[in-house]
Amino acid sequence: MKKLINSPETVLTDALTGFAAAHPELAVDIPNRVIARAVRPERPKVALISGGGSGHEPLHAGFVGPGMLDAACPGEVFTSPVPDQMLTAAQAVHSGAGVVLIVKNYTGDVMNFQLAAELAVEEGIEVRTVLVNDDVAVEDSTWTAGRRGTGATVMVEKIAGALAERGAALDEVAAVAQRVNAASRSFAIALTAATVPAAGKPGFDLPEDEIEVGVGIHGEPGRRRERLRPANELAAEVVDTILADHDLAAGDEVIALVNGLGGTPLLELYVVYGEVQARLAERGIRIARNLVGNYVTSLDMAGFSLTLTKADAELLELWDAPVATTALTWS
Amino acid sequence: MKKLINSPETVLTDALTGFAAAHPELAVDIPNRVIARAVRPERPKVALISGGGSGHEPLHAGFVGPGMLDAACPGEVFTSPVPDQMLTAAQAVHSGAGVVLIVKNYTGDVMNFQLAAELAVEEGIEVRTVLVNDDVAVEDSTWTAGRRGTGATVMVEKIAGALAERGAALDEVAAVAQRVNAASRSFAIALTAATVPAAGKPGFDLPEDEIEVGVGIHGEPGRRRERLRPANELAAEVVDTILADHDLAAGDEVIALVNGLGGTPLLELYVVYGEVQARLAERGIRIARNLVGNYVTSLDMAGFSLTLTKADAELLELWDAPVATTALTWS
Repeated sequence: MKKLINSPETVLTDALTGFAAAHPELAVDIPNRVIARAVRPERPKVALISGGGSGHEPLHAGFVGPGMLDAACPGEVFTSPVPDQMLTAAQAVHSGAGVVLIVKNYTGDVMNFQLAAELAVEEGIEVRTVLVNDDVAVEDSTWTAGRRGTGATVMVEKIAGALAERGAALDEVAAVAQRVNAASRSFAIALTAATVPAAGKPGFDLPEDEIEVGVGIHGEPGRRRERLRPANELAAEVVDTILADHDLAAGDEVIALVNGLGGTPLLELYVVYGEVQARLAERGIRIARNLVGNYVTSLDMAGFSLTLTKADAELLELWDAPVATTALTWS
Repeated sequence: MKKLINSPETVLTDALTGFAAAHPELAVDIPNRVIARAVRPERPKVALISGGGSGHEPLHAGFVGPGMLDAACPGEVFTSPVPDQMLTAAQAVHSGAGVVLIVKNYTGDVMNFQLAAELAVEEGIEVRTVLVNDDVAVEDSTWTAGRRGTGATVMVEKIAGALAERGAALDEVAAVAQRVNAASRSFAIALTAATVPAAGKPGFDLPEDEIEVGVGIHGEPGRRRERLRPANELAAEVVDTILADHDLAAGDEVIALVNGLGGTPLLELYVVYGEVQARLAERGIRIARNLVGNYVTSLDMAGFSLTLTKADAELLELWDAPVATTALTWS
């Protein structure tokens, strides 16, 4: 295993130490593993908290800041954060208007966020939980009952974050988050497996000429293995797979995320984006907004995922609202 | 070779097609391979043009936009762009105030930009050329006489871009670019080799437990090979190597770039950043501004580079000026 770490045991603490040093606009509680905005809101607002296993950076810490999350709770690599950590985050950032927990659908995350929600309610904090489950690849998987939560998390956190920033009420913020998740579908293809530091070797064996179609962000198995094909064929299959599960029709607009899984050069992601855009155009679907880059990664895994969120005027307007995080910034 | 491409022959055209589709705020001339701002300046300003081989994305196309470059010329992967291409870029973006060409020090780039400068002068366009040669690893290398140009390109393009945006004169913009280059030093360590699509295999062989110390962004050999060590030891060596070549002293401030070479997860880059910051603090040097992420890559190479630019009030003020490109944005 070749990694820029001090030891597998300290990788999360060491990364948080570096993150804190690099971003003084964020308050990083290293012992409790909570990343929050350093500046509290001037008036009460709904607080958005997310979290999950580390190794998917910039998700979630990279999305903490004005216009998006209030706090993030990173677990160990590919391991759920714990309820106490989430409770600490809720205590740190709630300002009387309630808390929305954004949870990717993995069994450990769901269970721990549920416990955290109960603890927060006991402390008088009103809580809504929104589950993200956008991956159409498989119905159940290694760590999931139901569909996995992947790329749509970016859209949910951005759009719900924008609405919270405007002072919307708790149920409104939770409702738009649920609406974005329901309007989103994702599908991923891996060219290589990720290596978890504590494991020291790739999470699965993939022959030199094979790809994993429908892979999960922890390397969970997808639908099948097959030979590597040209980017235009892979992009077309991914688009078609998503459309087969989505209510998109000619004339619709989408927000599209062509997401690198960590080890794929940006040059290749733009090749994929061009093919995705062309395939959608053939179907009469227009990409109204896009992101191309590494947003929801799987450590050093090569490959990509596509997320399509059906857009309407309200969602686009919230998408366009200013955001200032380390991974997503516009004004 | 596992890559998300249609073919090695079309990878640049296909990536430019995707880039153009993703970023309508940029004018992408695919046949001539020029990426420029779609909106021309309202009054004459010095135009900044850079370019070089592809495979280092987001460099340079990702740095085109208000506050940074006016145009970028991408060559084939790890291959210099050609003089006609650079001339087309100069013709497209010059507005009467002259053009600064920012050239990384590689023999092909230097020769082709020199020819382009002569062609532009023949057309009545005033030109200054600024060479970037910040890599302290080796004096000469596979494709270079003198030091290689690497991470400092980001600082040069950002700071000179800010000054050009304010309406400074041609010689002033060229002078600040040269000053930033002179104030910058870089050093890189590779954990793996990059695979160029047309080659189909890694550019060099690196045993499973070895690293290349002082590697170039095309995989050019560095100073030596050695066993992989913990991140704190590698970061300390990189810092010390740069300081041995730099006039930095206790009390100085720097702009620091901890740059991923393409295949290294962000989690690891933050581990490295923490160690770099600590080592510099021991020497009494403060990081005034930082970037942590993939900015000057070598396709899928795992590893990192560190660039330190000695900062003063003028350079920091220009660094902080607004920028709106696909890879670097703040307001």
